[in-house]
Amino acid sequence: MQRRHFIGLAATGSLAALQAAERPPSAPAAQPAPPGEVTRTLARFLVATTADQVPPAVRKEATRTLLNWIGVAVGGSPHETVGLALAAIAPFSGPPQAGIAGRRERLDIVSATLVNGISSHVLDFDDTHLKTIIHASSSIVPPLLALAEYRTVSGRDFLHALVLGVETALRVGKAIYPDHYDAGWHITGTAGAIGAAAGAGKLLDLSETQMVWALGLAASQSVGLRESFGSMNKSFNPGRAGQNGLMAALLAEKNFTSSEQMLEAKRGWAHTVSTKQDFREITAGLGSRYETALNTYKPFACGIVIHPVIDACLRLRAAHGLTAEKISDIALRVHPLVLELTGKKTPQDGLQSKFSVYHAAAVAIVEGRAGPRQFSDRAARDPGIVALRGRVTASADPAIKESQTEAVITLADGRTLRQFIEHAVGSTENPLSDQALEAKVADLMQEILPAAQARELIAAAWNVVALPHAATLARLAVPA
Amino acid sequence: MQRRHFIGLAATGSLAALQAAERPPSAPAAQPAPPGEVTRTLARFLVATTADQVPPAVRKEATRTLLNWIGVAVGGSPHETVGLALAAIAPFSGPPQAGIAGRRERLDIVSATLVNGISSHVLDFDDTHLKTIIHASSSIVPPLLALAEYRTVSGRDFLHALVLGVETALRVGKAIYPDHYDAGWHITGTAGAIGAAAGAGKLLDLSETQMVWALGLAASQSVGLRESFGSMNKSFNPGRAGQNGLMAALLAEKNFTSSEQMLEAKRGWAHTVSTKQDFREITAGLGSRYETALNTYKPFACGIVIHPVIDACLRLRAAHGLTAEKISDIALRVHPLVLELTGKKTPQDGLQSKFSVYHAAAVAIVEGRAGPRQFSDRAARDPGIVALRGRVTASADPAIKESQTEAVITLADGRTLRQFIEHAVGSTENPLSDQALEAKVADLMQEILPAAQARELIAAAWNVVALPHAATLARLAVPA
Repeated sequence: MQRRHFIGLAATGSLAALQAAERPPSAPAAQPAPPGEVTRTLARFLVATTADQVPPAVRKEATRTLLNWIGVAVGGSPHETVGLALAAIAPFSGPPQAGIAGRRERLDIVSATLVNGISSHVLDFDDTHLKTIIHASSSIVPPLLALAEYRTVSGRDFLHALVLGVETALRVGKAIYPDHYDAGWHITGTAGAIGAAAGAGKLLDLSETQMVWALGLAASQSVGLRESFGSMNKSFNPGRAGQNGLMAALLAEKNFTSSEQMLEAKRGWAHTVSTKQDFREITAGLGSRYETALNTYKPFACGIVIHPVIDACLRLRAAHGLTAEKISDIALRVHPLVLELTGKKTPQDGLQSKFSVYHAAAVAIVEGRAGPRQFSDRAARDPGIVALRGRVTASADPAIKESQTEAVITLADGRTLRQFIEHAVGSTENPLSDQALEAKVADLMQEILPAAQARELIAAAWNVVALPHAATLARLAVPA
Repeated sequence: MQRRHFIGLAATGSLAALQAAERPPSAPAAQPAPPGEVTRTLARFLVATTADQVPPAVRKEATRTLLNWIGVAVGGSPHETVGLALAAIAPFSGPPQAGIAGRRERLDIVSATLVNGISSHVLDFDDTHLKTIIHASSSIVPPLLALAEYRTVSGRDFLHALVLGVETALRVGKAIYPDHYDAGWHITGTAGAIGAAAGAGKLLDLSETQMVWALGLAASQSVGLRESFGSMNKSFNPGRAGQNGLMAALLAEKNFTSSEQMLEAKRGWAHTVSTKQDFREITAGLGSRYETALNTYKPFACGIVIHPVIDACLRLRAAHGLTAEKISDIALRVHPLVLELTGKKTPQDGLQSKFSVYHAAAVAIVEGRAGPRQFSDRAARDPGIVALRGRVTASADPAIKESQTEAVITLADGRTLRQFIEHAVGSTENPLSDQALEAKVADLMQEILPAAQARELIAAAWNVVALPHAATLARLAVPA
């Protein structure tokens, strides 16, 4: 892997954020809202809280979420799914108010929100809140970025709206997870719309009652079913959720009314979309405990279940200067789920390669990374990778946890190398470092943005709180 | 009530349609689709069926649905809810491709769909499928009318797409009703989006697989919770559902993919949004049995529970030339639910008057009708109506069914008049006549469209199958 200049200014890392998020708050936590006051309590918090009340570690994690979003949005922008959506909606789009990351088209802010949402989710490489499997940024960043191009928004206000939007999505998601997800909902879309409304509503400076209505209008629009997985419909879901939240906030700004209790009422959101409702997840500790601080970022462009194997192979490669020729065979011990989900021995194309633990181990050794290009048609058919893949074996071992793996590599010279992984890089316990996150983002932007512009964009993202205009991010994300 | 010229050409009435719909089909009904083939079976029907295969009685009922829609859309167009929605979305709208019934603004077809959907539902006076409480037209006519302005669509094709869109919404609704509605969903929006996709997809001439995707993308967007009732959010739901269906069809036209089994899959639509799934309701008898033929239209602009009382009072008024001065008192025997829902004795404004059986009886006698103007602030405060309202009594009688009432009017000269209602006008058993429907529509358009233009529009709606361009309807619905 080539060395990269590391632009990150703060290096506290997200482990600090994790600790901050779980540390008992210095102020006593707010009491849970009385029944019937859930939507209003959340709205009151959203309207009243100021950027300086948000702990620095939370702001830092939101900055990392933003940076990761920029990478996956630019990286996903050439995808066919994005092009088809653009072709479908362009004839009906309004004035060219907002850009599309990685592309030159400009659309009205509502249309741009859809396209940016699709591109940032299409690689399945966006941020993940592991407790709920919500990928929050793909619904929430697009409307905020579009608004930042349409109205004057400082970087500080932009990041604050992002914190509040993500926090809202994760909290309403926790109130209904896992029943809601188990039933069939793509929670990224359903919770995402409500988070998008919260963030957009904050940028629009809604009153408390307008925010109640915005949350209600967004909660009325539950987009996304799990049956969409495997089709373009999947990345449509967060894109549409972002639009739903933005529309909700724009309507509420004009005093278009909704229920005062949409989240908690008997015929309201949580009771209708889930058999579980825990409203304390929404209202308890608002302002002192932030789920936003627990966001994670995938280092590898495939299902999280193979991440320990890739991590192990990359570590052995780096420690011993491994190449495919030096290797006689690779033996993996994995959790049984790994073979169940990713047991494909001879993947024929890029998509199939994401479901092959054999390919993942081989490509990590041969190419020293596991980004989108390592799960492409090209990589799946590369003779060197195919050859090594044939020398990989994997055995299911119930003693191995999902977060663990053991890789044993036997070299041609007879030596044996062994690597155990307890928690793969990118997990909550072993978060991606700022440096690794930045490398991931830079890699995603290669061949789409000029190198100097990509560096300038990464620097602007790290510095978002100091930007006079958050629109700078949108401008820099468009190829010069 | 003033006499109106009756423009209707065919006078078969919807009772004939009802009989046709329940008559055993001459051809054997299609077998229910095998599991896993529900979405595709529906799509195949939608793509393959031609206008001449639809029974005339079904086309007739769809024509009545269209006429009623035109009336409520024009009549609802000055409502504050419509103005606020327009103000919120206008800055982001695209080219002026489509009009808004009753108004002069022009928007892109997707934006126009939202506004026309809101205006046609805001009076709570649109069509009702009584088995499912779906108000189908408010989601389905707007996208079809917008497409008719954007592409060349004959009146015949337009009406056929409307038949198929309504049929789809009602069938998917029946598959999950009542559990889905009981859980809290505003079924008009959830089923409406799927119907809108079917109708729009037919006008866009989608292939079978594209239609499968359009249904899947629409089913991914479930808009509307019952908690919205009483706020502007309620009429937003069908408006947004129409947009969701139109977007789904436009995306599918570009080969934007979805699941092949979104309606029936385990993590698909019906299983996620309902505890009941009866897929035979979707696939059995397609092409031989039409739910569309069972659509009904409210004669009175208030909750259906007071319709028997209004019907009784109007009949007595007409039969005996009643005026308020001649009446000593009015005694009503009603189903207990009537007093529970509409027991407000002294309503202070128009909205409250819809929940007063006393006001309903009085205004029917004084003004001889019960349209939107009879449930206005003006009517609620009219001294003559207020005075008569004070002489109305109502007693709950468990022996009276919901569809029934008995009104006993004692005259100042001591005589007693009695009227029993078995099924109020507008029910499935006693459908609104073509003449009464036309009078309702003409009344709704008064003061919004010039009288001559309104007559021309009504004639065009009755004649829709013969129109060279369905866009004529949209043009005539805009004030000259």
